[in-house]
Amino acid sequence: MNYRMIKYILGWILVFEAFFLLIPGLTAVIYGERAIQPILITIAVCLVAGGLLIIKKPANTELYSREGYVIVSLSWIVLSLFGALPFTLSGAIPRYIDALFETVSGFTTTGASILPEVESLPKSLIMWRSFTHWVGGMGVLVFLMAFLPLSGGQNIHIMKAESPGPSVSKLVPRVRTTALILYSIYFVLTFLQFLFLLFGGMPVFDSINTALATAGTGGFGIKNDSLGSYSPYLQNVTTVFMLLFSINFTSYYLIITKKFKDAFNREVRTFLIIVAASIGIITYNVRGMFGTIPEALRHVSFSVASIISTTGFSTADFDLWPELSRTILVLLMFIGACAGSTGGGIKVSRVIILFKSLSKELQMMIHPKQIKKITMDSKTVEHETVRAVNSFIVCYILIFVLSIVAISIDNHDLITNFTAVAAAVNNIGPGLAMVGPTQNFAFFSPISKAVLIFDMLAGRLELFPMLLLLNRATWKK
Amino acid sequence: MNYRMIKYILGWILVFEAFFLLIPGLTAVIYGERAIQPILITIAVCLVAGGLLIIKKPANTELYSREGYVIVSLSWIVLSLFGALPFTLSGAIPRYIDALFETVSGFTTTGASILPEVESLPKSLIMWRSFTHWVGGMGVLVFLMAFLPLSGGQNIHIMKAESPGPSVSKLVPRVRTTALILYSIYFVLTFLQFLFLLFGGMPVFDSINTALATAGTGGFGIKNDSLGSYSPYLQNVTTVFMLLFSINFTSYYLIITKKFKDAFNREVRTFLIIVAASIGIITYNVRGMFGTIPEALRHVSFSVASIISTTGFSTADFDLWPELSRTILVLLMFIGACAGSTGGGIKVSRVIILFKSLSKELQMMIHPKQIKKITMDSKTVEHETVRAVNSFIVCYILIFVLSIVAISIDNHDLITNFTAVAAAVNNIGPGLAMVGPTQNFAFFSPISKAVLIFDMLAGRLELFPMLLLLNRATWKK
Repeated sequence: MNYRMIKYILGWILVFEAFFLLIPGLTAVIYGERAIQPILITIAVCLVAGGLLIIKKPANTELYSREGYVIVSLSWIVLSLFGALPFTLSGAIPRYIDALFETVSGFTTTGASILPEVESLPKSLIMWRSFTHWVGGMGVLVFLMAFLPLSGGQNIHIMKAESPGPSVSKLVPRVRTTALILYSIYFVLTFLQFLFLLFGGMPVFDSINTALATAGTGGFGIKNDSLGSYSPYLQNVTTVFMLLFSINFTSYYLIITKKFKDAFNREVRTFLIIVAASIGIITYNVRGMFGTIPEALRHVSFSVASIISTTGFSTADFDLWPELSRTILVLLMFIGACAGSTGGGIKVSRVIILFKSLSKELQMMIHPKQIKKITMDSKTVEHETVRAVNSFIVCYILIFVLSIVAISIDNHDLITNFTAVAAAVNNIGPGLAMVGPTQNFAFFSPISKAVLIFDMLAGRLELFPMLLLLNRATWKK
Repeated sequence: MNYRMIKYILGWILVFEAFFLLIPGLTAVIYGERAIQPILITIAVCLVAGGLLIIKKPANTELYSREGYVIVSLSWIVLSLFGALPFTLSGAIPRYIDALFETVSGFTTTGASILPEVESLPKSLIMWRSFTHWVGGMGVLVFLMAFLPLSGGQNIHIMKAESPGPSVSKLVPRVRTTALILYSIYFVLTFLQFLFLLFGGMPVFDSINTALATAGTGGFGIKNDSLGSYSPYLQNVTTVFMLLFSINFTSYYLIITKKFKDAFNREVRTFLIIVAASIGIITYNVRGMFGTIPEALRHVSFSVASIISTTGFSTADFDLWPELSRTILVLLMFIGACAGSTGGGIKVSRVIILFKSLSKELQMMIHPKQIKKITMDSKTVEHETVRAVNSFIVCYILIFVLSIVAISIDNHDLITNFTAVAAAVNNIGPGLAMVGPTQNFAFFSPISKAVLIFDMLAGRLELFPMLLLLNRATWKK
């Protein structure tokens, strides 16, 4: 294990965090808020701690698969531990475990909050919450790789460990260029949404925050009723962008490079079909609860986009909807967005691969001697990918079950526990019952909060990096 | 597809069913019940229908994997369709869909009932319910193979399709002898329990029924409060036998042939550890709800044995226990019994294989070039078995999710829907909330009952046979 290199990269993560904190810092200056002090202190702490770690660049910069996973999980933990400081130092969130929960929820783009109401928070801290979503959405190490010349071609191990989806595709041969392209597309899309919101009459501050939180498919609202009090136009804009940010960013690159056919690949098509079908069924199911069908359609589209993109914004309290609608929404929580997007969940491509491997198995039961390969978009899905997807599901179930058992000690009902873990692991935000869209996570015990913090990180990093951290063999020479 | 042979075996199934019905018939004679008439009618119907199908033995008796699955699933469906007749013809369960639910619940050893109370049922029909558990527990085709000289060595395809667990092991080279040995062990264990209950002061009729329902890990009670009103001794005897019937029957054969070390294999040891740990944690969790620790221990042991063996008897209403206990019980519902036992669920050996394959995957992430094989009891688990286990899980999730969505149309709460499907697919019986141990399944709509009937059959036959029935490719030439 290349410990020196791990320390070195963690150092840079802290330096970058200091740099990220300039944004809430600037906000505090603009609005003349006292939160500037805790923000500056945190910047100083990050710079000193980070600076000490990066003074000497290691001679050996080699990184392997193992280091890739460890660097990613430790980076996210360090980022969250320091990122929580402004909340506690400012007194906005007095208990550190709550501040950590909020920060991890931000970076992992979960959007689950322990705050009973958000509007009294200093604007600078609201901005910090939203910005954590944005950085977390595309990935902090992808950011680091885009702007820091690290080492040779081995960055792929880091990229692989941080990128969501069953397999990672480099857009161009160089990892650094790939990272830059991804962040450029990300920035442009975010800016577009900002403009659409601004032109719809949303205040500048609200537009920036909403765009940042949508882009990361995070879901921290800046109003107590999330997006409920904004105009239908603003809600619809957000619906569209939540869906746009759920699509594999590779597709946008393919559109730019005019490979339209490749852009609308199997995963994107399946995603859109799932969205359309869900909106159709739920709208029919809840039609009696709204004044008009278009109104029902607007709230349902928003909710479906919010859940499947794992954003977690809300305009209506879907916890009150009929059981069929609620069940479909819970199902969408698990399916999640496309691989290579900023969304969470199991990912549509994994679901497709699972179905295809099941179908293959059934064929082999009928014709045991037939040899069949799993293909997607006319390409063979490698045996290793199929195996990794299967392991992912097992790992997912394992973390899911253990988490539910652990938080059941708090003695809340099973729906609350089940959907709290589902909302955390899939990086959504709200669940049902006691963690429904109008509720928050404050009532959980510190131990349950720690479990959910682990779940959020595990979910964002797609399980394995966090699990390997707990594996003794990882640390052996 | 060898349709003639399929028809021929279905014919024999009906003849055997007529033979099975002699047992409730005899009961009706002994107690002078009017239910003798519907039972005799059903026997006649089975004999005529079955007789017509077996008049001519097909020239070609060859069976392949595909026929094996189709024969098994169709046999169970036919068995249930005709087995439900006495309930409806006697007027005890007027609606046929309810009678079918009850019969499928019997044969699949689920034990979920649509009857609000059971004590007013004619004793002959109570006996029929219990006997369906017994036949379903070990498998009706295993029974057929034991007593009917069918064809050459191809019966293994049928045995494979009906036996629970990731892989089937023939005890002796001949399938027929294997089937005979299994049924002998089954009969002896059932008779032993009958004697233990009888000596404990349980009436003969009650002892027979309880032994039959325990042996099949079925769970139909003959009292309205299940086993709640029997003495602690009788409850403890049942606890022990529920666990004994959850263990791979191969182990008993190994004990008889003095291979003690092989008998206590990894699966059995893991099963016993899970049982002991669950009893320990839940007893600690509910200790305040009972007068003394031994009393708590008795009820908890009973409940844990009842759930993990997927029997479904109850002595206490575990739906009222704290959330941790309830969550662990739900977890045990999924794990289920050992492969090759009469119990349901995912099976302990599958869970072990899943964990081992996950652990292997994690090792390969740390050392990508290392080659590692999955072993169990010092034997390599074949690649095909691992793949089949993975497909089983995917198939399991698929059936589970679609079922929950389908029955959510009834608009009952998610806990009810979730545990109703869990109780059906895992062949347990009671769930939580509206399908808790003191409740029944009568309130579901006919469509939901049909879904649950499918789930019970799918669960008992380990998913693939039922799924292949719906697969178009199965029926192609």
